[in-house]
Amino acid sequence: MQQDKGIEIEESLRPVVILARPQMGENIGACARAMKNCGVFDLRLINPRDGWPNPLAVPMATNATDILDDVQVFQKLDDALYDVKVMFATTARLRGMVKPVINPRQAAQYLFDIASQQIAQGKAGDEKARAAILFGAERSGLDNDEVALADYIVQAELNPDSTSLNIAQAVLMMCWEWRMAVLENNNNPTIQKDKEEANPPASLQSRSYFFERLEAVLDEQGFFASADIAPTVKRNLRNFFTRGKPTEQELRTLHGILSLFGKNRE
Amino acid sequence: MQQDKGIEIEESLRPVVILARPQMGENIGACARAMKNCGVFDLRLINPRDGWPNPLAVPMATNATDILDDVQVFQKLDDALYDVKVMFATTARLRGMVKPVINPRQAAQYLFDIASQQIAQGKAGDEKARAAILFGAERSGLDNDEVALADYIVQAELNPDSTSLNIAQAVLMMCWEWRMAVLENNNNPTIQKDKEEANPPASLQSRSYFFERLEAVLDEQGFFASADIAPTVKRNLRNFFTRGKPTEQELRTLHGILSLFGKNRE
Repeated sequence: MQQDKGIEIEESLRPVVILARPQMGENIGACARAMKNCGVFDLRLINPRDGWPNPLAVPMATNATDILDDVQVFQKLDDALYDVKVMFATTARLRGMVKPVINPRQAAQYLFDIASQQIAQGKAGDEKARAAILFGAERSGLDNDEVALADYIVQAELNPDSTSLNIAQAVLMMCWEWRMAVLENNNNPTIQKDKEEANPPASLQSRSYFFERLEAVLDEQGFFASADIAPTVKRNLRNFFTRGKPTEQELRTLHGILSLFGKNRE
Repeated sequence: MQQDKGIEIEESLRPVVILARPQMGENIGACARAMKNCGVFDLRLINPRDGWPNPLAVPMATNATDILDDVQVFQKLDDALYDVKVMFATTARLRGMVKPVINPRQAAQYLFDIASQQIAQGKAGDEKARAAILFGAERSGLDNDEVALADYIVQAELNPDSTSLNIAQAVLMMCWEWRMAVLENNNNPTIQKDKEEANPPASLQSRSYFFERLEAVLDEQGFFASADIAPTVKRNLRNFFTRGKPTEQELRTLHGILSLFGKNRE
């Protein structure tokens, strides 16, 4: 049983890392180390070239040998997905497939959202849908049949002259982005989920209505010293109030404040 | 001369990577590859254990051998900083030094801001202050004398059970965060600079003063239906107005609106 006291999210809601046809044991070890650094523990191998276990993986894993001990090996990618509901395929080149292409930071946010949904829906044990990140072989990357099983293609915006990441580097990048997504979402998917579900940003319509009312009240109260400057100030106010992404509840509070003006006016 | 058409920022404004007393040539090569992936080209070594050049670095560098060819080697860290004005020291453990400790994402934003300032101030050639990221030796990390030369300590929030990153992984993490900061800031430091310089977020003090005044006005106007609910509504308002990161100019506009209340009140 793995521990990671840095972020509060149970192991079954952390992503699964799947390496398709990995070649060098050293790289598998380095992937395990990167995963453990970031608190990701479930490593699955599809058809590793040199078999498994592979003693070459151990030195590069440093203190992540527990991840190596728990590795699951499969002959086919389909079999490795027995509990996976959402899969992200990492790739350095596009395939002309009709699939959403996102960057690692967006993928990390989706991973976080998926875990949050499981918690919010009260899913337990085997009911939980897991999310997996798939990485291709060192030289060849993923083949098209593997990418075809993915829900999302993940592509990092790297230097166009050098888009091929070492496999352990790719694993670190994804696992680090996932960890940062958890940390930046207040380190607690349930709380965040409750907050977001209960209070999504207000609709564009509600925001427009608020702006119109705000501007009408300010006009009425003679807020604008000159007609010349009014459009700029209005635009700046719209910018500011849009930036904070007000919720419907927050707009109601702001409307309440505007109503005070009305009251005073009368 | 290195090229990276993925992001529009000249080479002298990209960060410098400095490895203090690196041990294994393979790791130096892997660092060069990670740098090139992210469009970072200037690699400096302090006192590499096995001398330089080191043929073991070449295979791991893959197509980044041009970075290896341009490596500068120094006996002392001070000498490597000849054109560096701001240095970030990466470390897995805190040193009890009185220095700001930031995470890699914050450091990346600072790196971006520093480059933007150079552009905005029209600095050319040798006038430009470069920023460097310093990484310690494989086993021992940075020593305290090295950290003492840094302006910022950078620490990643990793799994507390496994905070030691492979050196090339640490380099990738920092260079990737830097690249994402450039990409997320619209890929154009000058434009971003103009916007931010002209309108930085207001100081904490200014924001506190605005909140106090807002709350005083609302209290005075009998905005809160009950005393029970007032603290919650006040907290929600503070949350909302903080989220939008108001500038000083925006706070002045909001103060102007508050003053209308006062006027009406009289």
